[in-house]
Amino acid sequence: MNFIQLEQNIISKKTFLCLGLDTDIDKIPNHLLNSQDPVFDFNKSLVDRLSSKIVAVKINTAFYESRGKDGWSSLEKSIDYIKSNHPDLFTIADAKRADIGNTSEMYAKAFFEKMNFDSITLSPYMGEDSVKEFLKYDDKYAILLALTSNHGANDFQLPNDLFLDVISKSQKWNNSQKLMYVVGATKSDYLEKIRDITKDNFLLIPGIGTQGGNLQQTIANSTKLNKRILINMSRSIIYASNGVNYLDSAEKVVDDFNLKSF
Amino acid sequence: MNFIQLEQNIISKKTFLCLGLDTDIDKIPNHLLNSQDPVFDFNKSLVDRLSSKIVAVKINTAFYESRGKDGWSSLEKSIDYIKSNHPDLFTIADAKRADIGNTSEMYAKAFFEKMNFDSITLSPYMGEDSVKEFLKYDDKYAILLALTSNHGANDFQLPNDLFLDVISKSQKWNNSQKLMYVVGATKSDYLEKIRDITKDNFLLIPGIGTQGGNLQQTIANSTKLNKRILINMSRSIIYASNGVNYLDSAEKVVDDFNLKSF
Repeated sequence: MNFIQLEQNIISKKTFLCLGLDTDIDKIPNHLLNSQDPVFDFNKSLVDRLSSKIVAVKINTAFYESRGKDGWSSLEKSIDYIKSNHPDLFTIADAKRADIGNTSEMYAKAFFEKMNFDSITLSPYMGEDSVKEFLKYDDKYAILLALTSNHGANDFQLPNDLFLDVISKSQKWNNSQKLMYVVGATKSDYLEKIRDITKDNFLLIPGIGTQGGNLQQTIANSTKLNKRILINMSRSIIYASNGVNYLDSAEKVVDDFNLKSF
Repeated sequence: MNFIQLEQNIISKKTFLCLGLDTDIDKIPNHLLNSQDPVFDFNKSLVDRLSSKIVAVKINTAFYESRGKDGWSSLEKSIDYIKSNHPDLFTIADAKRADIGNTSEMYAKAFFEKMNFDSITLSPYMGEDSVKEFLKYDDKYAILLALTSNHGANDFQLPNDLFLDVISKSQKWNNSQKLMYVVGATKSDYLEKIRDITKDNFLLIPGIGTQGGNLQQTIANSTKLNKRILINMSRSIIYASNGVNYLDSAEKVVDDFNLKSF
């Protein structure tokens, strides 16, 4: 899916919401645990229920890797299912990768070929040649960490305005139209400034929900020019309840969010 | 294994060498391809042949992820085999991870519990709270990217001396004695300065071999105080030949390296 289609979906579905599947097998409802692949079943049920009310799905690879090759299998099954059954959802591998060129080429193969994600999150620390392998694919996107939602953003991203340097330098790279940027809702004060230098690129915004970012200010500061933002929520939706009616609880959080945000 | 034992192994084995298993199934000798898990067999054969002449093994996760769950299985088998049969080798997951706290906790589980790596490489971009989960384990190490061997190090690491800021700030974190740092041999001019502020921490040095870093200058500038460095070589050893005698060719590269470097 390309970013023009994604923006159209946002407008027609009236939602910026990206569903974060940080699926922890220790937190999913008990009644699912007897199936062969509870994590996949949980993911499938959430996406099937919510697909008309979200535009994107972000799968956080750490939660799958923590279960070894069984977890990797749940990851592959989840992305395959979403791509086959919900082709209108933009998919994000939240993997925070990037390495020297020949290694990044392998990560791009893993997430764009072996699996068919539309995009992947990357750390910019190693610079252009660690990112460019991901930008060679048609209609695939590299989402650079710029200003993250966690406290540690104060350590290196904010001093000397490193996050602005990341954005402005990367805007000059080849295929920069295929870049997106992570900007935490907990840093919404900076969104207007960031929007000024990334007019056309999508922003992926975590930090609403469990992390406590301000929704109204986030939207006000990032959507003056266009609607190219994705707001991710993970835990506050997928663990809204862990009873048998967890899907009803999740849907209620999604409905409330969409009502407040669009 | 802790870093004191690692230093003793370096002194007794007279080598700084870390064997990099960037194992690409398209590049391994043809005669191995009929086995059930050629990548594991290739890794096993190299480690068995070279174990007395190296002190560490670094497994580059990208090359395994590119083959999906089969690749993840080869990764798990490789680390299990090395830990069980060569307990004197320090093991590194070259994974370049790090994320917000609850996600980093999952990555730590994946690489330190589900698998039993001694250490993992991390990108410092997201700051202290993205690293600290990895530092809670006894005798496990977090290897922060500081100044990498690739051209892209010029983009963000060198401007404003970000790499020095990463090192000096992280030296003040809790458990900083369990940090190590990646410094590329292609940047050996900076090693003396880096050594001044990381007197006790190990440095992991890639960039010798295929990437062209200067071996003599690298060693001279980093071992004045102690022998706490690991020099990684991957492609130049493991693909020294792809014929039936690939182990002889690999061992010759290792012997030459050890002769020149210790």
